[in-house]
Amino acid sequence: MSSALTEAPPTEETPLDPAALEQALRAIGETRYHHLHPFHRRLNAGALNKAQVQAWALNRYYYQSMIPVKDAAILSRMQDAALRREWRQRIVDHDGTCDADGGLARWLALTDGLGLDRDYVVSTEGVLPATKFAVEAYVHFVRDKSLLEAIASSLTELFSPMAIGARVRGMLENYDYVTPDILAYFDKRPEQATRDSDFALAYVLAHARRPDQQQDVLRALTFKCDVLWAQLDALYHAYLEPGNIPPGAFRPEAA
Amino acid sequence: MSSALTEAPPTEETPLDPAALEQALRAIGETRYHHLHPFHRRLNAGALNKAQVQAWALNRYYYQSMIPVKDAAILSRMQDAALRREWRQRIVDHDGTCDADGGLARWLALTDGLGLDRDYVVSTEGVLPATKFAVEAYVHFVRDKSLLEAIASSLTELFSPMAIGARVRGMLENYDYVTPDILAYFDKRPEQATRDSDFALAYVLAHARRPDQQQDVLRALTFKCDVLWAQLDALYHAYLEPGNIPPGAFRPEAA
Repeated sequence: MSSALTEAPPTEETPLDPAALEQALRAIGETRYHHLHPFHRRLNAGALNKAQVQAWALNRYYYQSMIPVKDAAILSRMQDAALRREWRQRIVDHDGTCDADGGLARWLALTDGLGLDRDYVVSTEGVLPATKFAVEAYVHFVRDKSLLEAIASSLTELFSPMAIGARVRGMLENYDYVTPDILAYFDKRPEQATRDSDFALAYVLAHARRPDQQQDVLRALTFKCDVLWAQLDALYHAYLEPGNIPPGAFRPEAA
Repeated sequence: MSSALTEAPPTEETPLDPAALEQALRAIGETRYHHLHPFHRRLNAGALNKAQVQAWALNRYYYQSMIPVKDAAILSRMQDAALRREWRQRIVDHDGTCDADGGLARWLALTDGLGLDRDYVVSTEGVLPATKFAVEAYVHFVRDKSLLEAIASSLTELFSPMAIGARVRGMLENYDYVTPDILAYFDKRPEQATRDSDFALAYVLAHARRPDQQQDVLRALTFKCDVLWAQLDALYHAYLEPGNIPPGAFRPEAA
């Protein structure tokens, strides 16, 4: 398994069996998923001020807003109706059945609760360019790579339920302005993420049979971890170190 | 002119005349071009250690390597042979006439001179994900936006000759391992950049006549400044603050 953990696993003569491939995928999460990032550790530990929590929620809104776009791009590449029926549920979960429903609306309840102006959030004007570049890289990835790689890049959701548990507990304990109702987004996600990632994992294990395909899916998951990690690097640099907010981005004192 | 300096200039009833549009474009450079970034100020001032200069050259190689790809994407959208003849010179300048010639080869002479392994540089394996996301955002921008916006996004070259002068002087003065021959890349760039940006500016001033087109070109130049700025933010965060190198990126001690 160790070869599957390196940056570019060497081509092997024989493919991994499904259990070993799953183990290699999970090992990527254990070393690269963004629950390990210092920004998230500080968020959970109560070490951020309100402006920093606002910056996180504002930037993460951009990621949330592009997830249904990303899933629509994947959907558009699926030739099989049964597969599309499965995948479209992700879009329903995020977009809901009306403006007040769905994951995106619940994320806006969080930014509302943190005192951010909703029009400003939705405009995405104050989002860090680095956030936009990382998120758009994800959308382009699922358009340009194989369907197998596109599906594999969603496998970060294997790791999100445990990260969400720690985040919700930490935020409720540590920030008096954070209440269960503004964290409603996270109530639904563990169940949805588990359902979605179970499906995606089964798909990947069934379809990544050749060594080159297995390398592709391992790289796809690594890429996706990089997308999440880079967003937190950008937040950390801009909002946890003084004087680094790039031109045009959200400035807490002007909010 | 002040309205043209804001994030999203309001639609005006009357367009700017060409001189005012040029002034508005130059004003974006004065406030957002990456010569103002603290990483470049430190690079020029001799405040970086060799590993940090290596990280800059390694990451910037990725940008350099994608410039001809970006220009080929623009070329592929031009319907006019005369325009293509003008633009293709940029690709010639970067790719040269053989492996030892051209801007990309001269950039590799710089990374060689800084002691980086050429295969490692060319592999781009150690490049920061945030660098890749920013550079790829630029390539996607010129593919997806109008040809006018794609050309306008190249106008950062209006500002590069003055930045290059300060950089070459500063690096030669301040780093004993930096010699004129490893900085040969920068010898040719001011003349090429001036020729290229004169052409692109004339094109933009001639074709951006309506207020909405003028807003588009101002936004395109702002976007491109963000692409350059985000690359330096990522370098600063990863290599000037301890403990922040993301998983998989260049680690000086292992070079």
